[in-house]
This record gives sequence, structure tokens and C-alpha cells, in this order.
Amino acid sequence: MSFRHCTIVGLGLLGGSLAIDLRAADPAITLTGIARRQATLDEAARLQSAGRPVFTHLTTDLAVVREADLVVLCTPVQTIITQLAEMAPVLAPETIVTDVGSTKRAIMNAAATALPTTVSFVGGHPMAGSEQTGLTAARAGLYRGATWALCVPANAVSAGTRLVTLIEALGAHPITLDPETHDEIVAATSHLPHLLAAALTNCVLSGRQTGADLLPSFLAGGFRDATRVAAGSPPMWRDIFLTNRDQVLVALERLMEELAGWRGAIRSGDAPHLEALLTTAQHRRERL
Amino acid sequence: MSFRHCTIVGLGLLGGSLAIDLRAADPAITLTGIARRQATLDEAARLQSAGRPVFTHLTTDLAVVREADLVVLCTPVQTIITQLAEMAPVLAPETIVTDVGSTKRAIMNAAATALPTTVSFVGGHPMAGSEQTGLTAARAGLYRGATWALCVPANAVSAGTRLVTLIEALGAHPITLDPETHDEIVAATSHLPHLLAAALTNCVLSGRQTGADLLPSFLAGGFRDATRVAAGSPPMWRDIFLTNRDQVLVALERLMEELAGWRGAIRSGDAPHLEALLTTAQHRRERL
Repeated sequence: MSFRHCTIVGLGLLGGSLAIDLRAADPAITLTGIARRQATLDEAARLQSAGRPVFTHLTTDLAVVREADLVVLCTPVQTIITQLAEMAPVLAPETIVTDVGSTKRAIMNAAATALPTTVSFVGGHPMAGSEQTGLTAARAGLYRGATWALCVPANAVSAGTRLVTLIEALGAHPITLDPETHDEIVAATSHLPHLLAAALTNCVLSGRQTGADLLPSFLAGGFRDATRVAAGSPPMWRDIFLTNRDQVLVALERLMEELAGWRGAIRSGDAPHLEALLTTAQHRRERL
Repeated sequence: MSFRHCTIVGLGLLGGSLAIDLRAADPAITLTGIARRQATLDEAARLQSAGRPVFTHLTTDLAVVREADLVVLCTPVQTIITQLAEMAPVLAPETIVTDVGSTKRAIMNAAATALPTTVSFVGGHPMAGSEQTGLTAARAGLYRGATWALCVPANAVSAGTRLVTLIEALGAHPITLDPETHDEIVAATSHLPHLLAAALTNCVLSGRQTGADLLPSFLAGGFRDATRVAAGSPPMWRDIFLTNRDQVLVALERLMEELAGWRGAIRSGDAPHLEALLTTAQHRRERL
């Protein structure tokens, strides 16, 4: 591992899992964990004492990032943006800063504005995680096999190269792309599916349905799969939707048009059109 | 097992799995399998010779239902409706007929119209199955633990009691309810989620997206889960949507209103409202 002291800001599923993997990859690395809430630090301390001595230091003081040569921000997107500004005055020259936030344009813009030119910022987004949240869900190997998007500004190319090496050491697959393309793609592949899962959950489990007492018996595997991600962290997803607002709205609008097409085919009883829509979906899904 | 000769019409995932379980429960039962296509019968014969001697007879001739004391229709809903009329003239008195179709009003009406009063029809719908289709996906225990809805007309109460015993022997949980309530519940818990999964698949995998070449790298677990059922059988789902048209349209309209609410919250940047929507979804999903 080419880093000496890594500081992870935000000790949830992603930050905690990253710490476990970094410690496993390099027993000698100094690992500092920063959480905003004392309760999270207490939780981290409990995990340490339960035989996982992962962190070297645990603190709520963001100013300790001054000692790191790598800082990884693992908080919700709006918090990342705030923390970039907060840590800017104390970061040492040559520090590499990255993040794991699910939207990239807002974060890249905030870093370019807030950070001194002596610091290199590379945006990151590992396509890992689950509906589980919090440090207790953290585990080794969470990133193995996952795509890890990187947005590398022109003035941070060598930092990008070092992060590619780190990401590959975790078993993940780095892909470099620009923040606009990133945000457009994940609006469709991740943000829209999450919105749909949550909306479907709210709709079907509203309790207002006739036969609501019988309904739980009829929630089979299809419904459970379709809504699984809806259990994800509300503050994290709130920030994602709001910092990728225009692209999420484009994706949602496209889906609502698609749904209007299905509604038309069902309403008019157009069996061939409906079967064609279903066959297209079957073929596209099977090719995945 | 209280039945002597069971004839299964339609040798797909549901019919095939039912045959496997019936044979396991009663080695002496006569099991006839009827398929419309010779290719399906050939497939069934191959499975037989591969060490699963499940069926006693295999044929394309629907008229052999005259020899059964139990007939189970496992074809798509519109085919069930057609086959009820086709078999009506040949069914022996006292025969019990049931089905596994995913909508119940259209089938109950068709049975009441087509079948002679000497025959007892009980509508059935096991909440089992998957995105896999066809006889090759058939397996023992598919129905274990599943809810199995039954619609028992006033003139078929004793047939209903015999089917409850059979269903419990398969390890499934029979629930008796009226066809209207059934169709309204499954419109929300099964038909709407399928429609959404297929619409999301068509939308996101259209190939028209910017960065479509990178897109496959960004299809993580959330997208795969949300769209899994979209690989299901198109003719089966076409019939479901068309025979439960009004209830599917009610459920879809309700969802589109919900989505319009999310769109409004995102468009106006209303962070507290958006977080409230997400928190409601999280709590409802976690209570499942």
C-alpha cells in the first residue's frame, strides 16, 4: 500500500468496510476514523474490542485530517460538500482527498472551489453497498468485483494513478469517466431504481388497500426483490436525488412516459402490443 | 392423497413442479400430463428418462381429462378460459377442476358459465414461481411455504376442503378469499411490481442513453433485483394484465400519482419532504 496514514471520514457501511479492507491489505497503515456522532465512535470502539482492531485512532475532530496523506470522505453527498470546505484550511500539502459519494458533479465542483491547489482531489464512487446501513453492517470484501468510478481532474492525474492501484488492491474495477456522464448513467441504473422501489413500497404498503389484512400473505419474492433497496438510508438518498436533480428528473420523466405507454396498451386491451413490450423486457433482462 | 388420477394441463414451471410433488407424496397416483406442443411432451419425456418418472401418461389430447378425478389447469389465464370450455363436454361427473392462474375473476366467471353443474370448480393461485419458465425449471418443493389462494364457490365447498388438504400436504398455506379481493390484492403486490420491472428494464436498457457502452458496468445489485422478474413469460403476463385490467390500471394510476409526488419534491428541492418520503419507505420495507 503506497499510503502511510489514511483517514476515513464517516463510519457507515462504506467507510467501515473500506477500513477493514485497508487494514487487511496493510497491517502497518495508520488508520484514523472520524465520525460526527459520539455514538458512532462508541460503536466503532465496540467493534475494535470484539477482535477487529481496525482503526488506529477514532475521533469526532475533523481537523485531524491534517495528519493524513489520504483522506476518504464516506458521508452523505451534502455532508461531503460541507466537509470539503471545513477541512480545506487544515489539509497538508500533497494530501490526496477522495470520496465514495453516489453523485459526482456537485462534489467535483465543490472540491475545485474549496480545496487549495496544493491538495489533489479525485472523485470516487464504488458501485457497492446494500440496503443495510451503518458500521455494524461493514464487512471485508464489500468492494470485491465492484465497479469503482473515478473522476480525475487534469491537475490530479498522478493522484488518480495511485488510487487506481489502491482500488485494484481491494479487488474492485476502476473506471475513469467525466462527472457528467457518471451522473447521467447512475441516474438511470441506480437512482431511478431506488426511487421506484421506495415509491412502490409507499404505494402498496400504505394500509389503505382493500383486504390490507390479507396483503402480507401475498407479498411474494417478486415484491420483496423489487423493494429491497427501499430500506436504504434516507439522508444518503435525499442528498443523491437533490445533487443529481436534473438527471434524476430526466430518468423519471422517461420512465413515466414508458408507464403511460403500458397503461395505454392495457386500457385498450391491445394484446399484441402488450406482449411485444413484455418480450422486449424479457430479452433485455436475459441479456444482462 | 385422496385423489386417484390427477391430470395436469400445461407443463411449465408450475405444472411440472406440481407433478413432481404429487408423485413424491403418492407413488401410486396416476398422473397424466397434457401439453399443447409436441416439443413440450418431448421435453417431459426426456426428464422422465433422466431418472424422474413423474408422469404416467403424456399427451396433447385434452379429451383425456375425462379419466381424471382431479384436473389442474396450469396454462396462461386466457388459455385456461378456453380450455374450460373445451373440456366441459367430456369431464366425468364428480370431477374436481382447479387452476393456478394469477387472476381469478375472469376464470371463476368462465368456469361458472362453461362447466356442467356435475363438476366442481375451485379457483386456485399459488404465490410461487419465479422469473424462470418452462418444464426444465420445475423442481420439488416449489410450493413449500407459499400462500395458495383459493376461491371456493358456494356449490363447491366439499371440493374446496379436499383441495385444502392437498395443498397443505404440499407444504403450502391455503387462504380462501373471494375473486374480487384476490384480484385487487395481487394487482398491487404482484402485477404492478412486474409491470414496473419490465418498464424499468425497457427504459434503462434501451441503448439510447448517453454512455450506453459504460452502462453495463454500472448495473449493480439494486438494478438486478429490481428487474429480476422482468424475465418472466410474456404470454403469461399479457393474459394477467388483460384479465385483471381494471385493478391493474387502478394500481398503476396510484403509483403514477406517487411518482408525481416524488418528482415534485425533487424538482422543488424540498429536502424535508423528500427525506420524509424516503423514511416512510424505509420503515414500511423494514417491517416486512
